[in-house]
Amino acid sequence: MMSQPAWPKIALTDIVLDAMGSDKAPEPEVRGAILACREHAVRVHLVGPEAALRATLDDYLKGERLPIHVVNATERIGMDEKAAVAVRNKRDSSMRVGLKIVREKRAAGFLTAGNTGAAMATAKMVLGALPGVDRPALTAILPTSSGSPCVLLDVGANVECKPQNLEQFAVMGEMYSRSVLKIARPRVGLLSIGEEESKGNELTREAYGLLKQLPINFIGNVEGRDIYNGNADVIVCDGFVGNVALKTSEGLGRLVSEMLRESLTRTVTAQAGALLSRKALKEFKKRLDYREYGGAPLLGVRGVCIVGHGSSNDRAIMNGIRVAAEFAQAGINDRIEREFSQRPIDPPPANRFGLPLQ
Amino acid sequence: MMSQPAWPKIALTDIVLDAMGSDKAPEPEVRGAILACREHAVRVHLVGPEAALRATLDDYLKGERLPIHVVNATERIGMDEKAAVAVRNKRDSSMRVGLKIVREKRAAGFLTAGNTGAAMATAKMVLGALPGVDRPALTAILPTSSGSPCVLLDVGANVECKPQNLEQFAVMGEMYSRSVLKIARPRVGLLSIGEEESKGNELTREAYGLLKQLPINFIGNVEGRDIYNGNADVIVCDGFVGNVALKTSEGLGRLVSEMLRESLTRTVTAQAGALLSRKALKEFKKRLDYREYGGAPLLGVRGVCIVGHGSSNDRAIMNGIRVAAEFAQAGINDRIEREFSQRPIDPPPANRFGLPLQ
Repeated sequence: MMSQPAWPKIALTDIVLDAMGSDKAPEPEVRGAILACREHAVRVHLVGPEAALRATLDDYLKGERLPIHVVNATERIGMDEKAAVAVRNKRDSSMRVGLKIVREKRAAGFLTAGNTGAAMATAKMVLGALPGVDRPALTAILPTSSGSPCVLLDVGANVECKPQNLEQFAVMGEMYSRSVLKIARPRVGLLSIGEEESKGNELTREAYGLLKQLPINFIGNVEGRDIYNGNADVIVCDGFVGNVALKTSEGLGRLVSEMLRESLTRTVTAQAGALLSRKALKEFKKRLDYREYGGAPLLGVRGVCIVGHGSSNDRAIMNGIRVAAEFAQAGINDRIEREFSQRPIDPPPANRFGLPLQ
Repeated sequence: MMSQPAWPKIALTDIVLDAMGSDKAPEPEVRGAILACREHAVRVHLVGPEAALRATLDDYLKGERLPIHVVNATERIGMDEKAAVAVRNKRDSSMRVGLKIVREKRAAGFLTAGNTGAAMATAKMVLGALPGVDRPALTAILPTSSGSPCVLLDVGANVECKPQNLEQFAVMGEMYSRSVLKIARPRVGLLSIGEEESKGNELTREAYGLLKQLPINFIGNVEGRDIYNGNADVIVCDGFVGNVALKTSEGLGRLVSEMLRESLTRTVTAQAGALLSRKALKEFKKRLDYREYGGAPLLGVRGVCIVGHGSSNDRAIMNGIRVAAEFAQAGINDRIEREFSQRPIDPPPANRFGLPLQ
């Protein structure tokens, strides 16, 4: 039986990992934590039923000493539990215990692959919103044909939004793209159904007026196809529309994989050809895989909170831990706070780059 | 120079084709009309600049006699023209002249691969809405993993909807699925962001109450992924959300094709393997191709109106003509009219199949 390892004497970023989040928890979490500690300068606080976690950890570590710290939490919020009820009733859930560590500043970030609604509700309750932020936003980082990912928000935290919420999403998304994804001058678009300013619904038309006065590189309305074609670095929308766009993509992605497998099986008869194609298919699926991007950050809460997919494997967990550490190191939350506290009451008439708004 | 052909003595369905719709018009239209006449029992009214059309037609027909009738229209509505302006100013556009033929009952249906907004506006103006229908809906027919297509509406005709509009979309979509796609008991879902009745925004929550009282097989809320996984035969939503879902799919579809081509090129080195894979890729793209489904019907207008994609090729045009003919033969509009005229003031408490509403 292993005791807690001695921490190495270098600066590590502390990340809390909900060990009971994913569909197959805690195996992917335990193995993901190990991978992350081996590859990145992080210390992982693994939260869940202590005895069981310690046993699983010992199995996988096989005596190796890594900065993984087990924190006890006796309850688990299931995937199908109603967020509001679970958050209220399960006071010793791995999510709640984990987020408290972030609130107490004993860790820089939190990652869970569990129930998205419960994670958002718990984070909002335990961490609270950043000053100036009315509504935190769940943010998806999606692949594009240009190779540089597109930041889409909100994808489900806020079903009904006001124009001011979309304005705040734009500021937060731009900051994330600039600080974590290292895009120098992120192009920010407003998701609508036509390019002209007049196109869209009441919400988007009003939000357009606010966005074009922000000190960001606002490129005007964009359409659904622009999420993937590399025309925008950040796209804002209300949480209902963003969630539909994200889940539609998920559904189409699955259909495509199925169809592709069938097409390859049907047309590629030679053994060698099938083998080669299988390799191509695998590489392709990896490129399309959101898991490579490490989960969806919840932007606008006081602390770093990343929500991974329930089907996360160890590699996805490792990437999520890396993303949480990068997010924390980039100091985005301080920047968002500063941005909102500095925002002029009467906004400037043009954007700071003097670019055409269409 | 060919004279008008003598019509064969069998019953033909008359379909009007906007010859000036697609990006490469009129070639795809002329060739698509020829393919349709050869393969299906249709007579095509080809609308556009008469002399030019007749010359192109003669080139492709090479003396073959087919029931294709040229109708003169001197103006063309461009892809980027504003619908409202184009409809008002271009009184001799191929769309308007073509739709008038349908209004005058000299043809059973109309197909255009032109400007979607202009086609919808012209159809609403020239044909008008069916009695009982407040808002016609643009309808996409999408592929699913079950092999049976999913009917999604509205995908762009109505940006802001009331719950009653979604209710009417459900009735019309169900009718289309049953009559044209031959689904015996279409499962109708309401596009939302969670399965429970309480999930969604104000519009979907109110629409839920109306839909569950309809005499259709309402399966409750569905999510974006259900568009493609075969869980529903008909999915209703407002035109903003539907348009975002459709265009997001289009964008992802394109990204997938690009990535796939790259992955195959990179990993499949042997000539034979590349050849086989290219065949698989082609087959796969065909299965995902909306063109195989023949365009998007505008449901709820007095007459049959189908809008194809601007990039339609001759095969897409042929399929669109076939779909228009099937739509007309199915007598859907009469059924929709009957349905709305027969609808009880006080709707029955359960659906007619006694199925659980969740």
